Amino acid sequence: MKDQKQLIQDLEKLREKAPLVHNITNYVVMNSTANALISIGASPVMAHATEEMEEMASLASALVINIGTLSEKWVEAMHLAGKTAKKKGIPVVLDPVGAGATTFRTNTTKDIIQEVRPQVIRGNGSEVLAIAQAGFTTKGVDSTASAEKALEAAKELAKNANAVVSISGKTDYITKGEDTRAITNGHPLMGKVTGTGCTATALTAAFAGINSDPFTAATEAMVVMGIAGEMAAEESDAPGTFYAKFLDALYKIDGEQIQNRWKNE
Amino acid sequence: MKDQKQLIQDLEKLREKAPLVHNITNYVVMNSTANALISIGASPVMAHATEEMEEMASLASALVINIGTLSEKWVEAMHLAGKTAKKKGIPVVLDPVGAGATTFRTNTTKDIIQEVRPQVIRGNGSEVLAIAQAGFTTKGVDSTASAEKALEAAKELAKNANAVVSISGKTDYITKGEDTRAITNGHPLMGKVTGTGCTATALTAAFAGINSDPFTAATEAMVVMGIAGEMAAEESDAPGTFYAKFLDALYKIDGEQIQNRWKNE
Amino acid sequence: MKDQKQLIQDLEKLREKAPLVHNITNYVVMNSTANALISIGASPVMAHATEEMEEMASLASALVINIGTLSEKWVEAMHLAGKTAKKKGIPVVLDPVGAGATTFRTNTTKDIIQEVRPQVIRGNGSEVLAIAQAGFTTKGVDSTASAEKALEAAKELAKNANAVVSISGKTDYITKGEDTRAITNGHPLMGKVTGTGCTATALTAAFAGINSDPFTAATEAMVVMGIAGEMAAEESDAPGTFYAKFLDALYKIDGEQIQNRWKNE
Repeated sequence: MKDQKQLIQDLEKLREKAPLVHNITNYVVMNSTANALISIGASPVMAHATEEMEEMASLASALVINIGTLSEKWVEAMHLAGKTAKKKGIPVVLDPVGAGATTFRTNTTKDIIQEVRPQVIRGNGSEVLAIAQAGFTTKGVDSTASAEKALEAAKELAKNANAVVSISGKTDYITKGEDTRAITNGHPLMGKVTGTGCTATALTAAFAGINSDPFTAATEAMVVMGIAGEMAAEESDAPGTFYAKFLDALYKIDGEQIQNRWKNE
Repeated sequence: MKDQKQLIQDLEKLREKAPLVHNITNYVVMNSTANALISIGASPVMAHATEEMEEMASLASALVINIGTLSEKWVEAMHLAGKTAKKKGIPVVLDPVGAGATTFRTNTTKDIIQEVRPQVIRGNGSEVLAIAQAGFTTKGVDSTASAEKALEAAKELAKNANAVVSISGKTDYITKGEDTRAITNGHPLMGKVTGTGCTATALTAAFAGINSDPFTAATEAMVVMGIAGEMAAEESDAPGTFYAKFLDALYKIDGEQIQNRWKNE
Repeated sequence: MKDQKQLIQDLEKLREKAPLVHNITNYVVMNSTANALISIGASPVMAHATEEMEEMASLASALVINIGTLSEKWVEAMHLAGKTAKKKGIPVVLDPVGAGATTFRTNTTKDIIQEVRPQVIRGNGSEVLAIAQAGFTTKGVDSTASAEKALEAAKELAKNANAVVSISGKTDYITKGEDTRAITNGHPLMGKVTGTGCTATALTAAFAGINSDPFTAATEAMVVMGIAGEMAAEESDAPGTFYAKFLDALYKIDGEQIQNRWKNE
């Protein structure tokens, strides 16, 4: 299939080029995100000091803005990096962690969407609903609204924000408004490890650093995530060892795995 | 036994309700604490921005205040969240990491105990001694005073602070002054992984979000920790793989494990 | 051999004394560094609040200054801790993560070298070149300049800064200018886990807390790193499980492993 070939080619390119992904991300997942990016073949850098934002963002092939443990100073850095990225044509992926849970998060998300205009917004159903509707209360950073319920809101958001919206869930949906892809790969244990969503965001940025079409990049990242989750679940039945096997799977995933496992709905 | 049945019932309830535990905790253990909470069945959120403290704390079933890598701004957030929790009747568990090692930590601990009045104070022997005596110097964040030596100080502290004091060590002691429980479960490898104590604190909060008696909740958390440590040590003999197996054990621990392994002194 | 005996003796002493290593380090590696230090036998403490820097640094056997995710406030803490350490004769190991990538990092590195005068500067080839030459652009925090290329610059830097310079790469080089050691132990999977360099820095500090000769301490840390990497690679073929096995190896490495595996060039 055309999509499979494209992904296999992009993955090869990713491993060859090792795109530098600049992450302004939350404390909880910095280590696991960095490891996931290295495992798939990218080069991570985590940096948030306002003093170095323009310089660091300029070096990168893609930028991740993840608001998981935000504070005032970091929001400033997010805007600085985001604006630099836009100026230089570097793709930006936003993860609105916990949007809807607090006003600070919802407002920060809105501001970044308006000011930075990210190419991809990647979150769970609750977060996407919260952004689209404003005023929806999520239960912390977990997904309480199913991806399906959030899909209509996501299409609306994609049009209004002129962005690809990528929702993770039992089925992942990637939409740019009129066009939507559904990915049914994955495994329930992925929800039992912290930061799986943040990893999906980081991989989306890694692929956006390789394939200039954000819709394709977002799809490819979710397929790789889902397949790696399935590979890991074949070797582990609980979260601790599953996480290690998941990183192993990102490192090992190849054309054969992609051809055999990618399930389109 | 009555206690075992209660724990089995509370663990089931925990996995069903997935209580949201709000953690203001240190950078070192954010990831491992989040993973431990998910593995046992709770929902973690890590948040520290003063801008969102009242809102976030209001959503939670329990609050963890852990001073492991504190700074001025975070102490402010701890007080904001703590006061909100008290107002709403949300249980607060304090982990005075490194109290006694520096004046900043000892004073921060005292202030939080006085202002926030946590239901549970959970630390190692040195920390508990440092709080009780003030002026005792710990060797960093490790336990140098045995739990036994600290027990008398803990009883005093429990009475003065009107809190349950939970001390981890070879034997764990949970005391509310007149009443004391001793738990002898556990394994030495637990001391070879960073943040085991912080995980115990987070699990104490998770159980406090389920069982409104802090003495019971603190006991249940230490029993679950100890049994999971024993389960993990049967499958690993060194810290790296032990940690992964420990998370697996939190995910797998069940009524049978609790009945077979809980050792009371 | 004399060096092997010295290392075996120092490792025994390390495990017996458990030197307290004070780390001002980056968010990405705090957990993995703490675990590596515990696994080898040291006691880690992570602390960065300016309010407690003098007190904390005074308690330690060695200090790590790692600029991986720096910000203005933390740079202040680095100087405070560094000056305290110098005053008390506590060895300081500097990891100039990403020096050369941004002006902020390069300048911070220069300032710390000038003001604190660390005993050991431990980085990758790009970072060392960047410091020595000033104006060299690294690709984020990865090593793009080979250790070999950086060696001449390192010798110069060692003389000018009156420090031991330790460069990690396929071959590790430790130099004090006139005198240079090369270590060829290690495994490529070490480069597929985030923070391996930061771990090398932390272990250098742990050995510096035991052996007062920084050249010996830096060499011993790199040998232990390399051998542990080889041990781990015999039990894993991908980054996630490799990392767990690497910590296991730090815990298990002994005189026999050192005698059988240490390769001198």
